[in-house]
Amino acid sequence: MTSAMGAVGILAGGGPLPAKVAEAAHAQGRPVFILGFDGFAEPDVIGPWPHEMVRLGAAGHMLSLLRQHGCTDLVLIGPIRRPSLRSLRPDTEGARILTRLGRALFAGDDGLLAALVRILAQEGFAVRGAHEFLSHAVAQPGVLGTVQPDALAHADIRRGIDVVQALGRMDIGQGCVVQNGLVLAVEAMEGTDRMIARSGECHQPGEGGVLVKLLKPGQEKRADMPTIGPITVRTAHAAGLRGIAFEAAHTLMTDKDACILEADKAGIFLLAVDPDHFQP
Amino acid sequence: MTSAMGAVGILAGGGPLPAKVAEAAHAQGRPVFILGFDGFAEPDVIGPWPHEMVRLGAAGHMLSLLRQHGCTDLVLIGPIRRPSLRSLRPDTEGARILTRLGRALFAGDDGLLAALVRILAQEGFAVRGAHEFLSHAVAQPGVLGTVQPDALAHADIRRGIDVVQALGRMDIGQGCVVQNGLVLAVEAMEGTDRMIARSGECHQPGEGGVLVKLLKPGQEKRADMPTIGPITVRTAHAAGLRGIAFEAAHTLMTDKDACILEADKAGIFLLAVDPDHFQP
Repeated sequence: MTSAMGAVGILAGGGPLPAKVAEAAHAQGRPVFILGFDGFAEPDVIGPWPHEMVRLGAAGHMLSLLRQHGCTDLVLIGPIRRPSLRSLRPDTEGARILTRLGRALFAGDDGLLAALVRILAQEGFAVRGAHEFLSHAVAQPGVLGTVQPDALAHADIRRGIDVVQALGRMDIGQGCVVQNGLVLAVEAMEGTDRMIARSGECHQPGEGGVLVKLLKPGQEKRADMPTIGPITVRTAHAAGLRGIAFEAAHTLMTDKDACILEADKAGIFLLAVDPDHFQP
Repeated sequence: MTSAMGAVGILAGGGPLPAKVAEAAHAQGRPVFILGFDGFAEPDVIGPWPHEMVRLGAAGHMLSLLRQHGCTDLVLIGPIRRPSLRSLRPDTEGARILTRLGRALFAGDDGLLAALVRILAQEGFAVRGAHEFLSHAVAQPGVLGTVQPDALAHADIRRGIDVVQALGRMDIGQGCVVQNGLVLAVEAMEGTDRMIARSGECHQPGEGGVLVKLLKPGQEKRADMPTIGPITVRTAHAAGLRGIAFEAAHTLMTDKDACILEADKAGIFLLAVDPDHFQP
């Protein structure tokens, strides 16, 4: 990692990952400062670390806090729902940045996050992917745990990859559920867990389906990486799925050991795939 | 309509449309016979007409009933969920037909219905689109009712058409909801009403979204045409949508007058579009 080796600034959405990034950066001997987004960051998660809560629209305040705490590197981590322009209530600097974001605000989630990463880079920060810190959480292609996908599962994964890549090219979502060649559910704004639960209600008799979750093609890898945790595994099992296929090297697992334990217990497979070279 | 002018056989799934087709055929002076699919056709709907209930897998029984009642023309109408092979329990003729359907059974809903239409044609029946009987229910391009879509709605409809056509090319679904450029929800197996309701829960502040519902590109038009009824309009209104765009000439409205009345009352627009020539 090449950087000025100042503090690591963590722009924190929801979930446990902001603290995991803080731990990893701290373990590397880096000072850490967390900016928690109001309404998204969880106080229990970021509480143990030096932090401030900020409104998403208060870009001027954010930039000065980050500079004040000596941040040279930034990581965006944890889910943030797309805000409305009205709820942003931008400060002066925020309004200036919104103007720079311009049309990206209306180009879907990925356009927005990619533009934000570009602007933070223009402001002089080195924007890092969370996976650069959480390298232990990112899987190589192959099966994790003890359950292996069979030929039918491989065929469903191949169809799922085609579907998610088509969705991703339109900046719609990162996941779908396929059962025996049939697409049961497709993810848009509702999030992966709700999509998985819905697929359970559309479940057809026969072998269970497969969740496929991937980066959008061309997605800015430093924001909104696909995330899988023990709850994903539990939800998939409850919905009658046989397994989960996710993108190797670009998926964050909130707790890899717990994911594998849950999957083995439930009898479902965890398969990290390279979507561009996956053969059923 | 060119045909041997025998009876019209209606292969009936759920909803009110099988009876509407029966009424229209009867009004043309044609004898009518309804085959209601067990678990899908509604007894109250088909009860007033000559009918029999049959298992989906009992193809041999179906063919002999249709011939016995002098059917020369067939119409497939009303939603049928894709059956599992196990639940089909095919009779001898059914097993022969399943072999002819072959891979289509695993190629998604549209592949299955298109193959079924092809086979019924090979068996000597003239397979008609429901819209050939329900011509009064099919709209020309343009606005129905009094509410007009504005420029933002036009832009959302354009994006929705692109999304549904991409989904349709993969035989996934017929609909999506777009709000201010953002795809809130995408339809797979759960059906349009549930997709609309979900979009309401993902609703962003600002102007409401738009439902876009279209034929899949290349879809067999004589099976599973997009259908809109007063409940669609009510569900859309409850989910905060501003309007509904649907395919002109290829959408069945279960009750056009009631749809327009509901839409005008709710203040939402109904726009029939030609998706290949729609300019925002």
